[in-house]
Amino acid sequence: MFRTHTCGELNLNHLNQKVTLSGWVSVIRDKGFMIWIDLRDRYGITQLIIDEERSDKSLLETARNLGREFVIQATGTVIERASKNPNIPTGEIEILVENLEILNESKLPPFTIEDKTDGGEELRMQYRYLDLRRNPVKNKLIFRHKVAQEVRKYLSDKGFIEVETPVLIKSTPEGARDFVVPSRMNPGEFYALPQSPQTFKQLMMVGGLDKYFQIVKCFRDEDLRADRQPEFTQIDCEMAFVEQEDVLEIFEGMTKYLLKEIHGIEIEKFPRITYEEAMRKYGNDKPDIRFGMEFHELNDLAQNKGFEIFDKEELVVGISAPTLNSYTRKDIDRLLEWIQRPQIGARGFVWVRVNEDGSFKSSADKFYSQEDLAAFAERMNAQKGDLMIIMAGKANDTRKQLSALRMELAERLELRKPDEFAPLWVVDFPLLEWDEETNRWHAMHHPFTSPKPEDISKLKTNPGEVRANAYDMVLNGNEIGGGSIRIHDKELQSQMFELLGFTPEQAEEQFGFLMNAFQYGAPPHGGLAFGFDRLVAILDGSETIRDYIAFPKNNSGRDVMIDAPSPIDPSQLDELEISLKQ
Amino acid sequence: MFRTHTCGELNLNHLNQKVTLSGWVSVIRDKGFMIWIDLRDRYGITQLIIDEERSDKSLLETARNLGREFVIQATGTVIERASKNPNIPTGEIEILVENLEILNESKLPPFTIEDKTDGGEELRMQYRYLDLRRNPVKNKLIFRHKVAQEVRKYLSDKGFIEVETPVLIKSTPEGARDFVVPSRMNPGEFYALPQSPQTFKQLMMVGGLDKYFQIVKCFRDEDLRADRQPEFTQIDCEMAFVEQEDVLEIFEGMTKYLLKEIHGIEIEKFPRITYEEAMRKYGNDKPDIRFGMEFHELNDLAQNKGFEIFDKEELVVGISAPTLNSYTRKDIDRLLEWIQRPQIGARGFVWVRVNEDGSFKSSADKFYSQEDLAAFAERMNAQKGDLMIIMAGKANDTRKQLSALRMELAERLELRKPDEFAPLWVVDFPLLEWDEETNRWHAMHHPFTSPKPEDISKLKTNPGEVRANAYDMVLNGNEIGGGSIRIHDKELQSQMFELLGFTPEQAEEQFGFLMNAFQYGAPPHGGLAFGFDRLVAILDGSETIRDYIAFPKNNSGRDVMIDAPSPIDPSQLDELEISLKQ
Repeated sequence: MFRTHTCGELNLNHLNQKVTLSGWVSVIRDKGFMIWIDLRDRYGITQLIIDEERSDKSLLETARNLGREFVIQATGTVIERASKNPNIPTGEIEILVENLEILNESKLPPFTIEDKTDGGEELRMQYRYLDLRRNPVKNKLIFRHKVAQEVRKYLSDKGFIEVETPVLIKSTPEGARDFVVPSRMNPGEFYALPQSPQTFKQLMMVGGLDKYFQIVKCFRDEDLRADRQPEFTQIDCEMAFVEQEDVLEIFEGMTKYLLKEIHGIEIEKFPRITYEEAMRKYGNDKPDIRFGMEFHELNDLAQNKGFEIFDKEELVVGISAPTLNSYTRKDIDRLLEWIQRPQIGARGFVWVRVNEDGSFKSSADKFYSQEDLAAFAERMNAQKGDLMIIMAGKANDTRKQLSALRMELAERLELRKPDEFAPLWVVDFPLLEWDEETNRWHAMHHPFTSPKPEDISKLKTNPGEVRANAYDMVLNGNEIGGGSIRIHDKELQSQMFELLGFTPEQAEEQFGFLMNAFQYGAPPHGGLAFGFDRLVAILDGSETIRDYIAFPKNNSGRDVMIDAPSPIDPSQLDELEISLKQ
Repeated sequence: MFRTHTCGELNLNHLNQKVTLSGWVSVIRDKGFMIWIDLRDRYGITQLIIDEERSDKSLLETARNLGREFVIQATGTVIERASKNPNIPTGEIEILVENLEILNESKLPPFTIEDKTDGGEELRMQYRYLDLRRNPVKNKLIFRHKVAQEVRKYLSDKGFIEVETPVLIKSTPEGARDFVVPSRMNPGEFYALPQSPQTFKQLMMVGGLDKYFQIVKCFRDEDLRADRQPEFTQIDCEMAFVEQEDVLEIFEGMTKYLLKEIHGIEIEKFPRITYEEAMRKYGNDKPDIRFGMEFHELNDLAQNKGFEIFDKEELVVGISAPTLNSYTRKDIDRLLEWIQRPQIGARGFVWVRVNEDGSFKSSADKFYSQEDLAAFAERMNAQKGDLMIIMAGKANDTRKQLSALRMELAERLELRKPDEFAPLWVVDFPLLEWDEETNRWHAMHHPFTSPKPEDISKLKTNPGEVRANAYDMVLNGNEIGGGSIRIHDKELQSQMFELLGFTPEQAEEQFGFLMNAFQYGAPPHGGLAFGFDRLVAILDGSETIRDYIAFPKNNSGRDVMIDAPSPIDPSQLDELEISLKQ
């Protein structure tokens, strides 16, 4: 027993009690005749005091030899502080130390263990075990734990059972790239790490488990963009005998439950919009609806007025940015540069100031009268003080560019409030998307997603128009979950594989077990998976996923703390009957 | 909405309600004028009835075309059954069907979906998704879910936080063989899958997380013995600022909590015995104490009586098997053959019958008088009707053989009751064991286990005698958990690595990050890991771990359902810059 209490719990109720605490030396203040030590553990900080009058002399010496992050054990009496600290729960007391033991020494840490540290990201990753001692990092992991517990509680109460699916599975070339694991006992053969437990959860529905979930690690060997991890965590769910509405209801319920339990926020009903509407209104299938600035199409108002740049384009579309009439000409020029960056690639925009006196001033005044601009403003519901921004071009590209601008302006205007939560469902996704590179159809969600029954007839004639029973949950501009009603009919599944360019032999080889299972009484089923890392980050008002992972990897897929991956012993390669290429 | 109720919930309270059920056709009984269907889902079975008088004619035809395991949806009215079935919760009612829809057809399954099936293990594994529909299989997975939930509840309530540790880590040759994962982004380098999150949990203690747990997949590329899986699940736990007693208390509490919640069994306090005592008393470091038959050493009573077979041996030791005086001479001969099998390899034993009249009859009557045998009986506390069995030989071997016999006899005498739970702690394990093959010391638990402080001085002089701060929790003859207080001092850890045959360079290369971490204020810490698959099986009164895994692999590490591992595309190998050896 190294302690009677933690460093976060003592207060005036414990006055005069003899206690033992253990923890790390956070701060030492030496006044010569008196030494204070801030002792820190997971639960808080408690002040220790040693002075000439009341303490043994040797204690002062011991204390003087302590360094930051030394691990110590202190025994003493809880006394009332002379000068109280109202900012911490233990701020009214301190411990008059009678015994002090050094449990372990510490080298000076490479960065300060404070809420605001002086360590750069790379250094903190290398010493992640020290970074974990900092409140912002530790609290994020505790928050993640809490969310996981609440998710499990909600789903268990709803009759879901958590089933562990295997990690060593079979490689399938569809989707992203698999990590593979050579099998020593089956030389020349490989396991793959799951990109998701998709086929297993469908097999469990065939197996009658009815309601399944799992908080589970998944793996993708992809070139890592910022904040993409090779291993990530999903809340994976599947239900039998359900239609889309049943799935939406359960998981809308789950998200409401989390917002209520965690933030005390009650949300009545999540709005729903179709994929098509989301693209038209926000240029984005995961719109942030904490703020407006919706798109308004202006083809009928802006074309055929002699402004050639608009006339010949597929789409003229604009947003009205609140209060941005305050932008100077220079500010606007910089905004123009911003959207012309290669990452966004827009050609430019037309701006229209909505002045306080009700007049308009536009960069295309030559072509548009005050009445024209008033019509724009009416369409966009622009208010005095707004800046209207209008772009034109090919519909898809322009929407994408304007969406990027919308998000950027929302950031600048601080409309993306971290403590506001605006969930919605995006439904009716297209089943397929055409891939220019491979010149074939790809499944927009995955190959097991069912088309809407009323669109099945178009599968042969017009696949691009077929809508799927697929849905995403979007929270604050992030897709936090997505799912679909699955195909449960062998014939329809075969047809899908064919459409996706699989030969019957390839389909059989890769998904034969699933097709086979579908012959033995597969029930209608569907489900959804949440990106758990992202969900946790967003619920905590952040978008930095990496902070919510205890031991993340960097952008090269490396764990810089343990130095993995790393070369392995040649004898290991021999046992696996593989060799490295030169 | 495919159903208004499940197949497990309707009873007389629902009389005359119109309901819709969905599920699988379990049994059809066709009386010509009347057809009954047992409709099954995860929650139970409900009887459907269709008859000439009350039902539409077309329904009888539809019903007649149903096959076993067809998925159907039936709408009808809840009515009282003429002949009730008291064995199922829905046995008092049936559904008079008004509408019947086939949701999916089914081929005839390769084995019957009944509690007692006609399918062999291999077939059931191949069609695991059908096996899951059977109650015994499904219920085991639900049981596992329940145990996991209770474990999480208990540990969370005690202040533990569940933290996910990485699956793609670094290969270390100590311990069992790692599965490795070639890194495409870092050619020539490999990740390893964790055999346990050991080093991460220690780093979290250095990081001040104080109390950590995780229910986590672990991996070992070992030649599979019966009931060993290449991937398995641990309850992994670690605590800072603890001594052995603190760890035992928390996890004894957890196991008590599980026994109470799951079986309503209350256990006061777990017995504790040292490793040495366990070996002396049971010949086994995981003794089953649901029954007696403890070992009694007889050297002083049995040697120097002219019986040479005993005289020259290191150990003479016996057990008294209750009621086994009923064994005929033939039975005893067969028992002899049993222990002489190569798996056990004993030479033989001496038996002594304890007759009802108080007399003894022994296979060594020539050497032992009735008084001698009475002394044996007294030592062993043998009762009338017992059969004493005495073996001799080298101490370790003989104890092992007698332990196997003790377990075998307990099985035969049905003393290993599946609904009785007898946990205990085995403590004070040796720190090291000598490995004849490699001619060096191995860590009995693992290289991070701390020696008992009072034994540290023997590390250099007599390593074999050093005891560890290591402990196992044993339940019904199975080690369900094991752990230790860890080394938190860099110097001591270096000394351990040296003792285990690591060069300083090897230690640095493989565990440098841990050694480094120990320099920055590592607190005293320790923990424990439970084998979750085994814990669940034993709590459910079984020892067959595989039954508690949703998708287990066979003894060659194959998933015969999805057919993994399997060859991968040569382009995948190219991307990974590895090739197969011929």
